[in-house]
Amino acid sequence: MTSKILIQLDIDSQPSSFDSVVAIDAGVEHLLPYGGVKPESVTSLVHGAMFTRGGKELKNTAIFVGGSDVGKAEAVLAACRSAFFGPIRVSLMLDANGCNTTAAAAVVAAARHAPLATAKAVVLGGTGPVGRRVAQLMAADGAEVILASRSRERASVACRQLNTQPFDYPIKPGQSGSTSETAALLQDQGIVIACGAAGAQLIDKATISDLSSLKVAIDLNAVPPAGIEGISVTDKAQPIGHGIGYGAIGVGGLKMKTHRAAIGSLFTSNDKVLDAAEIYAIAKAIG
Amino acid sequence: MTSKILIQLDIDSQPSSFDSVVAIDAGVEHLLPYGGVKPESVTSLVHGAMFTRGGKELKNTAIFVGGSDVGKAEAVLAACRSAFFGPIRVSLMLDANGCNTTAAAAVVAAARHAPLATAKAVVLGGTGPVGRRVAQLMAADGAEVILASRSRERASVACRQLNTQPFDYPIKPGQSGSTSETAALLQDQGIVIACGAAGAQLIDKATISDLSSLKVAIDLNAVPPAGIEGISVTDKAQPIGHGIGYGAIGVGGLKMKTHRAAIGSLFTSNDKVLDAAEIYAIAKAIG
Amino acid sequence: MTSKILIQLDIDSQPSSFDSVVAIDAGVEHLLPYGGVKPESVTSLVHGAMFTRGGKELKNTAIFVGGSDVGKAEAVLAACRSAFFGPIRVSLMLDANGCNTTAAAAVVAAARHAPLATAKAVVLGGTGPVGRRVAQLMAADGAEVILASRSRERASVACRQLNTQPFDYPIKPGQSGSTSETAALLQDQGIVIACGAAGAQLIDKATISDLSSLKVAIDLNAVPPAGIEGISVTDKAQPIGHGIGYGAIGVGGLKMKTHRAAIGSLFTSNDKVLDAAEIYAIAKAIG
Repeated sequence: MTSKILIQLDIDSQPSSFDSVVAIDAGVEHLLPYGGVKPESVTSLVHGAMFTRGGKELKNTAIFVGGSDVGKAEAVLAACRSAFFGPIRVSLMLDANGCNTTAAAAVVAAARHAPLATAKAVVLGGTGPVGRRVAQLMAADGAEVILASRSRERASVACRQLNTQPFDYPIKPGQSGSTSETAALLQDQGIVIACGAAGAQLIDKATISDLSSLKVAIDLNAVPPAGIEGISVTDKAQPIGHGIGYGAIGVGGLKMKTHRAAIGSLFTSNDKVLDAAEIYAIAKAIG
Repeated sequence: MTSKILIQLDIDSQPSSFDSVVAIDAGVEHLLPYGGVKPESVTSLVHGAMFTRGGKELKNTAIFVGGSDVGKAEAVLAACRSAFFGPIRVSLMLDANGCNTTAAAAVVAAARHAPLATAKAVVLGGTGPVGRRVAQLMAADGAEVILASRSRERASVACRQLNTQPFDYPIKPGQSGSTSETAALLQDQGIVIACGAAGAQLIDKATISDLSSLKVAIDLNAVPPAGIEGISVTDKAQPIGHGIGYGAIGVGGLKMKTHRAAIGSLFTSNDKVLDAAEIYAIAKAIG
Repeated sequence: MTSKILIQLDIDSQPSSFDSVVAIDAGVEHLLPYGGVKPESVTSLVHGAMFTRGGKELKNTAIFVGGSDVGKAEAVLAACRSAFFGPIRVSLMLDANGCNTTAAAAVVAAARHAPLATAKAVVLGGTGPVGRRVAQLMAADGAEVILASRSRERASVACRQLNTQPFDYPIKPGQSGSTSETAALLQDQGIVIACGAAGAQLIDKATISDLSSLKVAIDLNAVPPAGIEGISVTDKAQPIGHGIGYGAIGVGGLKMKTHRAAIGSLFTSNDKVLDAAEIYAIAKAIG
């Protein structure tokens, strides 16, 4: 039996121990972690994965790309794809800073309470890697999405970038620079997901409590104070105002299951590329 | 079955292969070695250990802190403890430069020939990490201990530091700057343990042979010339003068067993901190 | 059962994933990869291998030296040997840049079609690590060998170095600076092996096709254009001119088997040193 090997390419100088432990718990038998990985140093590492196991055994080697900076990790993922020769390739997964598993778990949790095909959703702190992915995934399943930022300009830039990408859905920009702007933005929205910086409050208690259209509110900030005042980090389908609330740890169980299942699926064929949409599909299957 | 993962945090740029092999031989199933670890880079590595396995499974992840500089490793250990949130923590062990396992094995070997509760002991080269630990452990079990150095001032500083620490036992400073000073210091002592620098002779053959009160002499220096002239590095309970002698390799078997048993015990609960006293207790149980 | 541990010392900053995967597939249970290894940092890593397992168990730890620069890797191998104390040692293997397994597989493939004891052979691009090894191995088995380079001076230097080494066989220098020089050099040769730089054509199609003495031609260059025009990288015993041809991937299967078998043999005793001649012996046994 050819053992399952995961090559963990991390852009940080110390490879993430979180990603290492999850990989092992997902059934990886031999982990090869690399730190300080740059796009220009990837080719020989990828060739080492491609040229050591032949034919049907090739699927037992896979590559995970991680680290704290999603943009840099995306450049490493692109470099991995460029190193392949036609069908001689290995499966790839990107989950830098947990961006894909977190976004996927949040959207699946939201969809339990508001069917996406008919939902109106706002993503606060939406210009970061998690916010962009949350907006994309909801839009791809039919929701009307507002991607909001304190700066309308940054929100507009993010929307233009997202709407030219393969997910060509209309995601609209919104401004949440003040309490009153945020309250106006939330009017008639059923889904509110806060993806802002750690420790930054984006919505106060009065605003979220008064929102009569609210079906589900998810706060992905794990560091006090809460991004949505009134949601605790461990909340999992707890009442909040007129809807249901989740905190970061409240969606963490699904995030972890999704992460493990995604790692496991890497080894079912040698040609997977698991990024936002693919990891979301895995999270949906878990539910 | 959740596999046993040890995160090996080493302050040296290349993690110790010695510590890696011992960990594997102690039953660690997946080792995650990190080199060049600094206190400020520890938090995310520790959080990765804390937040990947829940409840009863958390005890299957543990952290080992090592490297050639004990002081720097102690700072890393402190940083690990600071990263914990209440009961969400993993077990920790410090054995930088083998300081704890070496000191523990030496004291257990000494106690075979001179009950510590009534012993008079002198630790030569006592101001280093191993010497300090040897002095502490013997004093904690009731011995009267002189911690000696070529410099009385450095010996006094070490004693003041040790006597304000949790082990608040009277350890007295001594000066061993010359052969005659050393001989005077040894008068009436039953236990003599040499913990000096590699390749430095601390006691000559005449002095150790003439010491009529000697019960046991242990030389922890493994590099010729011997720290105690007349003791060979492989001596294990061999006659020396009026007592019994051990060399570094002579206590090495117990040191290795202690190291392996300590690693093994990390995985019995998620809240252990194995430093000098805890590792000494493990060595005593082995005998 | 003491598990098989391989310490992978790589002179490159990122240890070779190729060497890691092959080691795992050869039965290594725990791999300890180190990057950026220098001769001066080797001693403590080797001592960690020597002093952790006693007696009969020592053979279950071994060291592999690799990386892209063969000369630097040879200095690391020498430093490993210097760190041993008499019989307290572990087995060693060098295969930096695949030099030994590639050379061994090429010579074994050549010998299928032209018995070395009576062969006349030319090695083009012969001054590099693979070319030198190919020349040595063929000469050691009785072939008359010309080691050729575009520069006669560099070819002469290489031959002087090889002929003073343990393999004291007459390897003669040759110059292949132009098409006509190369054609002249090949006259009456039965074995032609091209070991030049990636992507550099050393022999054109007319020259190799017209060579009536040709028995076997091997091109170890894997990057287009081919080193010997008319040989495809995947050719394995395909007709070329008056003889038989192999490309780099065509000898790759034997190279991989040799690499795995060599790793496996490290763990049969604690005193092996697997360099060119020893790895060639393993390749011959595989055939």
